[in-house]
Amino acid sequence: VEVACLDLEGVLVPEVWIGVTETMGIEALRATTRDIPDYGQLMRQRLEILDQNGIGLSQIQAVIAEMGPLEGAREFLDWLRENYQVVILSDTFYQFATPLMRQLGWPFLLCHHLQTDGAGHITGWDLCVPGHKREAVRAFHGLNFKVIAVGDSFNDTGMLGEADTGIFFSAPENVTRDFPGFQTTQDYGALKTAFQEASRKLRES
Amino acid sequence: VEVACLDLEGVLVPEVWIGVTETMGIEALRATTRDIPDYGQLMRQRLEILDQNGIGLSQIQAVIAEMGPLEGAREFLDWLRENYQVVILSDTFYQFATPLMRQLGWPFLLCHHLQTDGAGHITGWDLCVPGHKREAVRAFHGLNFKVIAVGDSFNDTGMLGEADTGIFFSAPENVTRDFPGFQTTQDYGALKTAFQEASRKLRES
Repeated sequence: VEVACLDLEGVLVPEVWIGVTETMGIEALRATTRDIPDYGQLMRQRLEILDQNGIGLSQIQAVIAEMGPLEGAREFLDWLRENYQVVILSDTFYQFATPLMRQLGWPFLLCHHLQTDGAGHITGWDLCVPGHKREAVRAFHGLNFKVIAVGDSFNDTGMLGEADTGIFFSAPENVTRDFPGFQTTQDYGALKTAFQEASRKLRES
Repeated sequence: VEVACLDLEGVLVPEVWIGVTETMGIEALRATTRDIPDYGQLMRQRLEILDQNGIGLSQIQAVIAEMGPLEGAREFLDWLRENYQVVILSDTFYQFATPLMRQLGWPFLLCHHLQTDGAGHITGWDLCVPGHKREAVRAFHGLNFKVIAVGDSFNDTGMLGEADTGIFFSAPENVTRDFPGFQTTQDYGALKTAFQEASRKLRES
């Protein structure tokens, strides 16, 4: 039985900050690490913008709950959990993911953590270890498990490379072009087939 | 958010080999590591007895499916998964656990694996790394997570000792006497309270 490591945003649920930006109509929140490469600086800017607009955690969580998982994600994940041991490895925060995890049947999730004050303002964040996606795959290898990993972006490539099989799902072309060694899939049907083929090869080897 | 590491048999489901022994009425299967300390020798004896009685994997799985989880286990686990990231760490085999995992909502499980032939006979087994329960706790620590662990027997004490908080659930007196440092609980209500207290202390520290 293999461990399946899945990225969250873009693979099972929409991009959270983009959804929040669009639903709340705050264009300044649209910046990503492509605009501000320093993650700490980007997060500080996001928190300032939220504060200026009087937006607390509960309002963001309400927006995220409305977003819901991607179409077909729950059915795919249910199938995956019957056949593999599934871990979600994400750069989101538990407080953002919770409304989506409820809709996905509470899969096992390793991600970051937001600090809030008593009034529900987001005051800071605690990160896992650097490269926690790749490190988690290493840890499962250390326990003697084979790993099949799925992601859609640059921050997943360490995990995909460390896994026994790495698969792109719905990844932008600039990502797949830079990492041509990983199989690409565009929908859950193709991803399911990719899992079955990867398992068969791993069990034969 | 803490990682909750739970033993399976005795904590969420009945002891599988005892259930199989009693349902099938094969007294020779009752031997445990208390009678035959060498696990490999014990497993070889069990497989021989199954073979002599013409019992394959599917018949054992049917018995296990009928056993079901312990009373209240599903409700407890559902609560736990909403509040913690839950991993089941067990010395059982995936093929035995599957009917019970279905009834428990497919939690994340790290355990051992049985080898079977095309006819459904159990021919051998593959173990995780030695001490995989303790090693898994170490791995979560390495990813910067706090761990609360629950077990009921000697093979859990390495995991309980490695965790930030170790809790016995329904453990025999000879076990709790030898390891007086761990809190003891007897039912899911007490276990829930123990989790809440452990979290509060870990978050304050």
